[in-house]
Amino acid sequence: MKTVGLTGTIYLPENVSKTKELALVREGAVLRHHGTDVEETETKARQMALEEGIDFISPYNDMDVMTGQGTIGKEILEDLPDVDAVFVPVGGGGLIAGIAAYIKALKTTAKVVGCQPAHSAVMAKSVEAGRILDLPSLDTLSDGTAGGVEEGSITFPICQQCVDDWVLVEEDVISDAIYFMMAEHHKIVEGAAGVAIGAFLKTAQKYHGKSVAIISCGANISMEKIKKIIELRQQ
Amino acid sequence: MKTVGLTGTIYLPENVSKTKELALVREGAVLRHHGTDVEETETKARQMALEEGIDFISPYNDMDVMTGQGTIGKEILEDLPDVDAVFVPVGGGGLIAGIAAYIKALKTTAKVVGCQPAHSAVMAKSVEAGRILDLPSLDTLSDGTAGGVEEGSITFPICQQCVDDWVLVEEDVISDAIYFMMAEHHKIVEGAAGVAIGAFLKTAQKYHGKSVAIISCGANISMEKIKKIIELRQQ
Repeated sequence: MKTVGLTGTIYLPENVSKTKELALVREGAVLRHHGTDVEETETKARQMALEEGIDFISPYNDMDVMTGQGTIGKEILEDLPDVDAVFVPVGGGGLIAGIAAYIKALKTTAKVVGCQPAHSAVMAKSVEAGRILDLPSLDTLSDGTAGGVEEGSITFPICQQCVDDWVLVEEDVISDAIYFMMAEHHKIVEGAAGVAIGAFLKTAQKYHGKSVAIISCGANISMEKIKKIIELRQQ
Repeated sequence: MKTVGLTGTIYLPENVSKTKELALVREGAVLRHHGTDVEETETKARQMALEEGIDFISPYNDMDVMTGQGTIGKEILEDLPDVDAVFVPVGGGGLIAGIAAYIKALKTTAKVVGCQPAHSAVMAKSVEAGRILDLPSLDTLSDGTAGGVEEGSITFPICQQCVDDWVLVEEDVISDAIYFMMAEHHKIVEGAAGVAIGAFLKTAQKYHGKSVAIISCGANISMEKIKKIIELRQQ
């Protein structure tokens, strides 16, 4: 918001991480909280925007957001024209729909793998069922992908058509993936990135000798969670 | 060693961090341990090399090592021709001597700031005294810079001539600097890097509006230490 010189109100679930909140406040955002599942939060934000006569931007159910995120697919194919698989964390599906649509449009043989926490796998289960399901989510380290998918979301049919495979990742695997990134790569990644890295680590034997790209989508994680992840490994 | 296809024996102090050891073993190194201050370790390694008729390479008291590290100075000036100050962690002084010699040879006005943990500040105190002192070191988060300086080291006269300023950094400041890098930059850095970053944070008010480069020299730190650093901040 600072960059474009605009003001905006960001709706967040009540259980949002303090680290993420602080980063947003620093960027000059006005925050409002509603619900504990992002689907409730989105519904509220959409309704308030309508009442106040201002634009609503969905974090995933938006063609511009989705295609913007899809430029990652372009970058991957520029760097790795022969990539065999791309692992993408999935919440509402904007990131993967953008990337997968681009990769499939180019008729490459690259597989696109959707990665979700087992505790909140609404998109994966919806694709399996053939319709967007209204499912509850359990608490997950991957707060960035947690929660439901808006009814009629444009990301759903693209996920149906363009995502080749789904991997659901347990909380201990997400935690191990975050630990692995710290201990071996000296990088702090957030839970959603841990989901994609964990999904790869879990299925790595299938990709021996292959070229794989994994989307490490961010680093909004509290130091408290980092401490717990280290403690878990030391037990 | 893997890269050049050679074998080598690396002498380490007995209290070396397990993380560093594991990284070396993975590179195919043979490890031997001696002493608790790196000065004792170096003396032993030099003696063993002589007895066994093999080459001894000092981690700092070596013209090739020093000039190799000095290429960092070249890179900094290429990226930031008008840099006002360069903060460098100092142990035996190879890194700073290489960088400072290059920067001063180019007659830039950039200040070179030597950064040492207050618990082990042998080079800074030696430069102050005008001769290499034999001083004990206390335990420090910056294991990478800890310990004495070999008598007659080629780095000493260069530090005397080319380093403009010295900052000694307390353990809590090193810890805070490592925490800052994790929380704000999502990067894990080792204690020695924390010394240079901490030295800057400690004196930042002097550099308002200036261009400063800080050498973050590595990330060999145990997850156990990372956990303790987070705990310290939460108290």
